[in-house]
Amino acid sequence: MSKRWMTLLGVFALASAASAQTWIWYPGDYEIWLGNRMNNNRTERGAFFPPFWKTDSHFVTVEFSKQLDLAQPEEIEIAAEGKYNVKFDGKLQFGMPDKFTLPAGKHSLNIKVWNQSTPPSIYVKGRSVNSDGTWKVTNEDKEWIDESGKASDTSATEYALAGYWDFNDINTPPSKVSPLRYEPMSYVSVEDKTADGGRLYDFGKETFGRIVLKDIVGHGTVNIYYGESPEEALDLDHCETLDKIRFSADDVRDLATNVSVRNSGDYTLDNTKAFRYVYVAPESGVKVGDVAMLYEYAPVEYRGSFRCSDPELNRIWDVGAYTMHLTTREFFIDGIKRDRWVWSGDAVQSYLMNYYLFFDSPTVKRTTRLLRGKDPVTAHINTIMDYTLYWFNGIYDYYLYTGDKDFVKELYPRMQSLMEYVLGRTNKDGMLEGMTGDWVFVDWADFPMSKQGALSFEQVLFCKSLETMKLCADIVGDTADAGRYGKLASELRGKLIPTFWDESRQALVHNVENGRKSDQVNKFANMFAINYGFFDAPTTKSVMENVMLNPSVPAITTPYMRFYELESLCSQGMQEQVLGEMKDYWGGMLREGATSFWEKYVPTDSGSQHLAMYGRPYGKSLCHAWGASPVYLLGKYYLGVIPVKPGYEEFSITPVLGGLKWMEGSVPTPDGDISVYMNDREIRIKATEGKGYLNVRSGKLPKSSYGKFEKTGDNSYRLFIDTHDEITVKYKHI
Amino acid sequence: MSKRWMTLLGVFALASAASAQTWIWYPGDYEIWLGNRMNNNRTERGAFFPPFWKTDSHFVTVEFSKQLDLAQPEEIEIAAEGKYNVKFDGKLQFGMPDKFTLPAGKHSLNIKVWNQSTPPSIYVKGRSVNSDGTWKVTNEDKEWIDESGKASDTSATEYALAGYWDFNDINTPPSKVSPLRYEPMSYVSVEDKTADGGRLYDFGKETFGRIVLKDIVGHGTVNIYYGESPEEALDLDHCETLDKIRFSADDVRDLATNVSVRNSGDYTLDNTKAFRYVYVAPESGVKVGDVAMLYEYAPVEYRGSFRCSDPELNRIWDVGAYTMHLTTREFFIDGIKRDRWVWSGDAVQSYLMNYYLFFDSPTVKRTTRLLRGKDPVTAHINTIMDYTLYWFNGIYDYYLYTGDKDFVKELYPRMQSLMEYVLGRTNKDGMLEGMTGDWVFVDWADFPMSKQGALSFEQVLFCKSLETMKLCADIVGDTADAGRYGKLASELRGKLIPTFWDESRQALVHNVENGRKSDQVNKFANMFAINYGFFDAPTTKSVMENVMLNPSVPAITTPYMRFYELESLCSQGMQEQVLGEMKDYWGGMLREGATSFWEKYVPTDSGSQHLAMYGRPYGKSLCHAWGASPVYLLGKYYLGVIPVKPGYEEFSITPVLGGLKWMEGSVPTPDGDISVYMNDREIRIKATEGKGYLNVRSGKLPKSSYGKFEKTGDNSYRLFIDTHDEITVKYKHI
Repeated sequence: MSKRWMTLLGVFALASAASAQTWIWYPGDYEIWLGNRMNNNRTERGAFFPPFWKTDSHFVTVEFSKQLDLAQPEEIEIAAEGKYNVKFDGKLQFGMPDKFTLPAGKHSLNIKVWNQSTPPSIYVKGRSVNSDGTWKVTNEDKEWIDESGKASDTSATEYALAGYWDFNDINTPPSKVSPLRYEPMSYVSVEDKTADGGRLYDFGKETFGRIVLKDIVGHGTVNIYYGESPEEALDLDHCETLDKIRFSADDVRDLATNVSVRNSGDYTLDNTKAFRYVYVAPESGVKVGDVAMLYEYAPVEYRGSFRCSDPELNRIWDVGAYTMHLTTREFFIDGIKRDRWVWSGDAVQSYLMNYYLFFDSPTVKRTTRLLRGKDPVTAHINTIMDYTLYWFNGIYDYYLYTGDKDFVKELYPRMQSLMEYVLGRTNKDGMLEGMTGDWVFVDWADFPMSKQGALSFEQVLFCKSLETMKLCADIVGDTADAGRYGKLASELRGKLIPTFWDESRQALVHNVENGRKSDQVNKFANMFAINYGFFDAPTTKSVMENVMLNPSVPAITTPYMRFYELESLCSQGMQEQVLGEMKDYWGGMLREGATSFWEKYVPTDSGSQHLAMYGRPYGKSLCHAWGASPVYLLGKYYLGVIPVKPGYEEFSITPVLGGLKWMEGSVPTPDGDISVYMNDREIRIKATEGKGYLNVRSGKLPKSSYGKFEKTGDNSYRLFIDTHDEITVKYKHI
Repeated sequence: MSKRWMTLLGVFALASAASAQTWIWYPGDYEIWLGNRMNNNRTERGAFFPPFWKTDSHFVTVEFSKQLDLAQPEEIEIAAEGKYNVKFDGKLQFGMPDKFTLPAGKHSLNIKVWNQSTPPSIYVKGRSVNSDGTWKVTNEDKEWIDESGKASDTSATEYALAGYWDFNDINTPPSKVSPLRYEPMSYVSVEDKTADGGRLYDFGKETFGRIVLKDIVGHGTVNIYYGESPEEALDLDHCETLDKIRFSADDVRDLATNVSVRNSGDYTLDNTKAFRYVYVAPESGVKVGDVAMLYEYAPVEYRGSFRCSDPELNRIWDVGAYTMHLTTREFFIDGIKRDRWVWSGDAVQSYLMNYYLFFDSPTVKRTTRLLRGKDPVTAHINTIMDYTLYWFNGIYDYYLYTGDKDFVKELYPRMQSLMEYVLGRTNKDGMLEGMTGDWVFVDWADFPMSKQGALSFEQVLFCKSLETMKLCADIVGDTADAGRYGKLASELRGKLIPTFWDESRQALVHNVENGRKSDQVNKFANMFAINYGFFDAPTTKSVMENVMLNPSVPAITTPYMRFYELESLCSQGMQEQVLGEMKDYWGGMLREGATSFWEKYVPTDSGSQHLAMYGRPYGKSLCHAWGASPVYLLGKYYLGVIPVKPGYEEFSITPVLGGLKWMEGSVPTPDGDISVYMNDREIRIKATEGKGYLNVRSGKLPKSSYGKFEKTGDNSYRLFIDTHDEITVKYKHI
């Protein structure tokens, strides 16, 4: 399956490269606009369902500018989406010129665009003068003149570098580009349910797209009920999504959106939906000849791969990758049926899985921009305290995996204003407590868990966020900020143990509430502290035993938090145990018939219990991005590929079979790949960029086709790699 | 002239009254949207010319809600501008219902609308349930649910009361309403300028609207050059505004906007322009049969009036009123030719003139909302420090004249955030100095004036702004804020004399720069301190002599600052001198041929010098709102009508002839009028609402048809008025 995408346009992957000329806009504004369109596609039983958090919008007036130094005159073509003007050397030109001849020499070119509906954007094409990411943009040029006509010399205009994707066609402005692709697909089986034409169509697996009604005869309404399960599609009163399409002599009307088109006998729905099963129930008077679908997908490339000796694990990886693909759309979304929104806590996991699957940085950047939105900050991201903190941490990961400093520089002002909001909500100890309007989420836990007072979990995330702020302040060269955030981070980190540590239980307790340290121990804060390296080695070891591997500590029942739980086990070398857990937990979903991974899975549930959530019989999402974590775990902790310096400038490869007989796979890097094959005697690796280390556990010194291993500990050996040829290693399994 | 408007729809004046059902939106959002349309109508020689400050936009997703308590079921009609949903008692309804039956009892109704292009708005019509200003709105409902489906009980949603105008037709949503009116008008003379059809049309006076080209024959471009003077219309290379319309066989194309319509032989331009003269120059191949115009105006009512024994003063009042009418459009704008933007310093004078002419509160409110825009505050209003301060002071005036506390409550959160911005830009002494990006304007002065350091003028305005914040904090019941702002105001006021007073010159000096008190004395800070009552009586007297009446202090040459200068003279009883100055200055403009009052007038200029400004030969605006101040001065200091308590609950009438033989006129109050007639023996007054005092200067006790005068000083008498009948007073002129 993975190969088919390789041949498609790598649209998303290419987008980070500057091209000769492209449509440009204020950075982040296209994402905010596109995000509104995407988030607002969510429906609940035919009702439009926009997010409950603040919906931002693009800047409606934007100025684009470029300083020119031309050896020869040249003519440029100009296009804009919006009403615009062109100012050359400070002089406004008549009308909205679509061509302009630039004389040789040093000149300034400014184009100002107003557009209420869609992001103001321009396209300029000349021999050497072309719109691209080097143009400067501002929403506030502050260029007044005095009585004599002299322009202000004290302007405080703040310029940013233009945003762009890969919209390179002058005739297709950004709002008209469809970033997704479509492919016709058919159902695999159909079942008559009523005598008058009610039929249940099964498309064979979880999918997403537009239903196509074919060969319609007669007049009346066709009701369409969607299900991720047959139970849901057939439960007309409780299925989460539905459509009603009315066929008249002349037109077809979508009764949910009130949009009509001419009746041509076939009808493709405008709205997309997630489903495996579709129950189509026409009113008497109208007959549906056939049903099909138009599969909608993002044209991303499957760059990562994984195969091994265990077919079940291969199936887990495949279904995980498919789950990731379904939830990778204009942005990384949480689930495709019920939610269809962008959530920061879900996205930060998608980013990590993406680095081991698509390595599609543009989708990470788009999602990050959309989540942040515009100033002023009036609530946590998605209203959730933890989700604000994950947003910072996602930037840390992005920088580590891509090495892209430009994106950090673009975001830094909005990182600052968001962190100021967070710092404005700390208690007297500098810790975050939920204030009115803050959703303290953590996880959908099946045990009582207080959200009051200072939660250790939130402080661990907060500490990492402050460290990320310090890192990014250093990148943008803001030493004052770097010092301030660094100090706040180390102060907070210094308080974690004194505030939350329970010596007798060898754990961070859940929270401190009204000055009282809680008795509750759960895994959340402890596993994050392990993953972030906040504990010293003996403490880590003790927390592993007393919390992570302690059966009396409440179990985690969402793939969301199992992601971090299993990461903490892998990071401590427990790949063999984690392999078993993956086969139990994700294998358990497969045995329940999953074709994509779920929002939540409680192994002890049975039958339709698996479908229910939020007090609704089909409220649970059966295709949820956070369900796909094996894609990440297998790449990072089995193939063992990790960037050590930003952007894989330096990497480490620590392959671990974890009980498998053999495995092979590939991990994408910014401009290359690292491929790994391993069995119990041989390792073959190839990295097409960067340099790094291969770490091998072996009973004796391994032999390599390139260079020599050095011993780094008992049964531990390391090989420095500075070649882009394949390296073969023979080793002795211990 | 004034009467003709009386018969038109009083659309603007009626808007503050809640009606049975009307289109509603997030307060201020319609204004911001409409303001963008209006500001962006500005052009410079055929180029689109949007403001250089931040252009805000409406909230794109808004929820409207209403708690219901119905004795009986009722059906409501629902319309929305945007994509919407309807939630009844927390349950989303299918699609976008245009009818819904509400059962009896207590219920909640929520309608959520998304619209990127125009403000989300709704219209609900039922028997008792109707959309109006009592509905609550929010852009951020923060209503998440937990895993069980339970809604959050810690939401921090901030609701506002819905905004509305008088858009009461369900079939005409807000974005489709034209708030202006049109009337065909003709030129008064025409002159052939070229053999091939170039003609100069004179419309007799300054006017505004759309040119109509009639009986077009042939194909080619018709060039249209506008002038406030014939020199400008005929100077093809330098006139400030122009249009180019191309007639082809099939269509007519506006070459500035690239909009085409079918060629029917006649063509009305889409763009409005200001002009008295229009030079129409067709290319060879096309002939223009005739030219006319469609006058565009706001349907405001001339409620104030003034007539007196001096025909020149009557003409000054008439031209002032016409200048106000031309600049009163969707909002109060500065000038109608070049600028066509909303400027806070100009608007605050329009407000005051408006209270003596139209008393059109909705236009004051719209303008105030638009100027404030949205958070975050990233610059001063219009980028000008003084203009931010005037914005606060305009709210003080609004409250004094109208008594409208609801508007103060609506604005208060944005007053706070703007004042926080201002307070974030003070120096160590708590004074405002221009920081990078701040335009410190003061006035277009013809003498060198430093804008560096702390200007006394800015601190006087700042002090008044802080006092306004205190007043408004008291109105909304925020005692903490009231205390804080009150303290800041009194501290700053206490520093004015120590910092800026020059004892030898008996004046506030211009500024303190690098710790050094300036030598310069000008009128700006001194006259504002007089007008705000910041000086004690002896100081006021001394400043009048040593600054305001001192010929060695530089003269003011804009009507803008003459407004405050003459107010300070009037406030000290110098109406006779001010009458002379009005006849000299505004009469001077009339003698130069003015049919509306100018942006600037330097009596010593001659000929085309009067037209030039900003380094451009026709850069000066010959119709500028701030030119109309006699309308204000004559109402407030000659008819002498002043509100003493907010909204004219208590008023004072102090008529002063100032050298006139007689005068009569009317001053509007929120729901009535105060009319005054005076000659040198008799005064007649009638107030149709409120109560107050008539103050008369008289050689002996005046006799009244109602009640008795009390003596209040030498030759000063006061009559308490608590009747709505006309009162006649006989008095002895001193």
